[in-house]
Amino acid sequence: MTAIDAVLAKIDAGSEAALARLFDLVRIPSISADPAYKAECRRAAEWCANELKSLGFDASVRDTIGHPMVLGHAKAKRRDVPHVLFYGHYDVQPADPAELWTSPAFEPKLVDGPHGKQIFGRGAADDKGQLMTFVEAVRAFRAVGDLPCDISILFEGEEESGSKSLPKFMAENARELKADLMLVCDTGMWDHKTPAITTMLRGLVLEEVKVKAANRDLHSGMYGGAAMNPIRALSRIVADLHDADGRVTVPGFYDGVEELPKDVAEQWAALSFDPKEFLGDVGLSIPAGEKGRSALEMVWSRPTCDINGIWGGYTQAGSKTVLPAEANAKVSFRLVGKQNPQKIAAAFRDFVRARLPGDCEAEFISHGASPALALPFGSEALTRARRALAQEWGVEPVLAASGGSIPIVGDFKRELGMDALLVGFGLDDDKVHSPNEKYELSSFQKGARSWARILAALSN
Amino acid sequence: MTAIDAVLAKIDAGSEAALARLFDLVRIPSISADPAYKAECRRAAEWCANELKSLGFDASVRDTIGHPMVLGHAKAKRRDVPHVLFYGHYDVQPADPAELWTSPAFEPKLVDGPHGKQIFGRGAADDKGQLMTFVEAVRAFRAVGDLPCDISILFEGEEESGSKSLPKFMAENARELKADLMLVCDTGMWDHKTPAITTMLRGLVLEEVKVKAANRDLHSGMYGGAAMNPIRALSRIVADLHDADGRVTVPGFYDGVEELPKDVAEQWAALSFDPKEFLGDVGLSIPAGEKGRSALEMVWSRPTCDINGIWGGYTQAGSKTVLPAEANAKVSFRLVGKQNPQKIAAAFRDFVRARLPGDCEAEFISHGASPALALPFGSEALTRARRALAQEWGVEPVLAASGGSIPIVGDFKRELGMDALLVGFGLDDDKVHSPNEKYELSSFQKGARSWARILAALSN
Repeated sequence: MTAIDAVLAKIDAGSEAALARLFDLVRIPSISADPAYKAECRRAAEWCANELKSLGFDASVRDTIGHPMVLGHAKAKRRDVPHVLFYGHYDVQPADPAELWTSPAFEPKLVDGPHGKQIFGRGAADDKGQLMTFVEAVRAFRAVGDLPCDISILFEGEEESGSKSLPKFMAENARELKADLMLVCDTGMWDHKTPAITTMLRGLVLEEVKVKAANRDLHSGMYGGAAMNPIRALSRIVADLHDADGRVTVPGFYDGVEELPKDVAEQWAALSFDPKEFLGDVGLSIPAGEKGRSALEMVWSRPTCDINGIWGGYTQAGSKTVLPAEANAKVSFRLVGKQNPQKIAAAFRDFVRARLPGDCEAEFISHGASPALALPFGSEALTRARRALAQEWGVEPVLAASGGSIPIVGDFKRELGMDALLVGFGLDDDKVHSPNEKYELSSFQKGARSWARILAALSN
Repeated sequence: MTAIDAVLAKIDAGSEAALARLFDLVRIPSISADPAYKAECRRAAEWCANELKSLGFDASVRDTIGHPMVLGHAKAKRRDVPHVLFYGHYDVQPADPAELWTSPAFEPKLVDGPHGKQIFGRGAADDKGQLMTFVEAVRAFRAVGDLPCDISILFEGEEESGSKSLPKFMAENARELKADLMLVCDTGMWDHKTPAITTMLRGLVLEEVKVKAANRDLHSGMYGGAAMNPIRALSRIVADLHDADGRVTVPGFYDGVEELPKDVAEQWAALSFDPKEFLGDVGLSIPAGEKGRSALEMVWSRPTCDINGIWGGYTQAGSKTVLPAEANAKVSFRLVGKQNPQKIAAAFRDFVRARLPGDCEAEFISHGASPALALPFGSEALTRARRALAQEWGVEPVLAASGGSIPIVGDFKRELGMDALLVGFGLDDDKVHSPNEKYELSSFQKGARSWARILAALSN
């Protein structure tokens, strides 16, 4: 029996006790957004810190101006092992509307589901069940012998309410938080049989533009025909942002966009992803992005330009024959690969200015610019995690991407230079943020085994 | 001495008394929009009715659910004279902000101006001064002899607050209101030396369109790139409404648009109209309409398509990475000549539908559709009025147009089939609807003489 087999056996043997611990944590209504639950948040933090202490971690509850952080460290006896920082969050979403829950949100229980038992309760998946998969893996290593890595664990209590205390905490504890690799368990599987590693997170450039023409709103009876209408100018600019093939026309926009490695492209093409189902859920049927790209590429690996808002002139009931003095749009860009957010923001502004008709001027506001994040496809950590997950699940993990950003990952990359390995065991139907949240019991149990295998693989 | 000379002499001899009467009317704060002045509106109506009675009119104050109408009739002794209906309004705009008036708004007085004396006070121009030019002309005819025409006079008390009672009043009194020609004194001169007849009023089609895509707002992180964005679709449609030459691209839009008669085109070209000044007042410099057309044509005789409002998605402070479910625009068309409003509304809707990308649908709301109105350039009434004004002012009147509509004119054309002769003596700097409204004393005095000449000319 190799060391990992003993650890896995330990996890299996302790599964009932592990479930009882998770139930204890779920019973604490640590709703970070509601001040009424402030004490419950602290109670959850203390519960987590005590768990870590019981596993030999130098762990403590750290006060912030919001809800506290939990931070703990444990070193392997072996030297020259990697140092990983695991991130999770102990806070949960509010449980309202309470009447839509089939039983109380903070009274966890096992229920039957199509793929076996499910753990029912607010936070069962997001993120209490997920973070406990890691804790249980660590517990098994402790019970069997040495830790495979130096392990730091950070549990946040404000993830569901904006992570307001995190930047200051990171700045003040940078040296303590710095590790070789960040591990995050807040993502999902491809399906209930297929694990996934989220290797790419799209970046985001958020721009707002105001096009101004006359120095005041005009009456279209008096000026209509002769006066420039900034809505007309802005509509032309917005329309020009995409060509007929759905490609973004801002010069240089695709600089730094890379094609997928062949094996990843082949994996994605083979996935049972039905764009009709994906879009059908929201009443659509036709992938609206670049011609020649699959819907999965459109949302995972291709950059986009999205108009998030537009407004100008009279927008209330009825009619008003006004030629407005200005028109506005909020435009965002999802970035991939090595696209440079600053260059793209500047190119967008140049693009607008180049299209301004006479008598129009533009003003811009930046609402943020962050690059795409990726764990390089060739990285050793990714290779080892892929192998570990394949061994546990008997199937290659999907190298997934996330169309949206995960702010914490960007923060750690930017502030501490740390890459993140994102592995999670959630499923699309877990109803996170909704009534009747659940987490598959198999996700919980095989999730712990998966982390054990990943930690062992990173260690070797 | 011909009859008209006696009438004009009578007007000149009675100018002080006429001014005193106008002052009496201006002193009544007949603000129709403010319920606090309801009694004052009635007082103004009664004042007007008494004036008409004193001139031998069968006149009365007619109750409505709003402010009353004043309607009176007087017949010439001669038979076979035309029957004219003069329209004016006794109500005025509110006078706030009071602190911006150099002296109280309802204490009329004469002040010095660059072109002579001015009558100062709310309503001095709009419309009390203007309507009294007609009353004083009628008075002089009465003093000298017979009326030149059968004359009906309608004074409305809700023109400044939406004319809400007018449609019902017209419907219930159609036979009493019907005349051969409507006379309206609510327009302006070209400049203080040059009279004008407003012969064309642009029509108006008011459309609202909603473009819908997904069945709910989407997160651009999850769907960005793959889901159709209705703002993008709507912007393309709005941008396509004009071609590079500023022409409206809706098929059939220019059907029924006629070129100006040669003499009118030459008159307009010779006018001292400076587009730089016209646009410069509002911070613009470049006429934005059809290439090859003068700015005056753009606002007077050419049809337009104006985007009055656009909205969709997130429009508040900051950013939100939303792909909205819908986007909306309010689009209006100013019509000229024989353009058919119903056909243009339908053509616009077809234009939108033809450009909807897959997964998008459009809903429309009509906020109204009315044709352009014109007193035909060849009409006898226009020819006679031109001659009469030229005799009074020593210069050919400008055959002007109004880019906007005058609802009352449309109502009488549609309901009673009456054309309108629009002659007024306002100037651009009269500050109607603003503090320190004034009316040139010369407008008042020569205005009365002008109406006397027009009535005489129509009579012959």
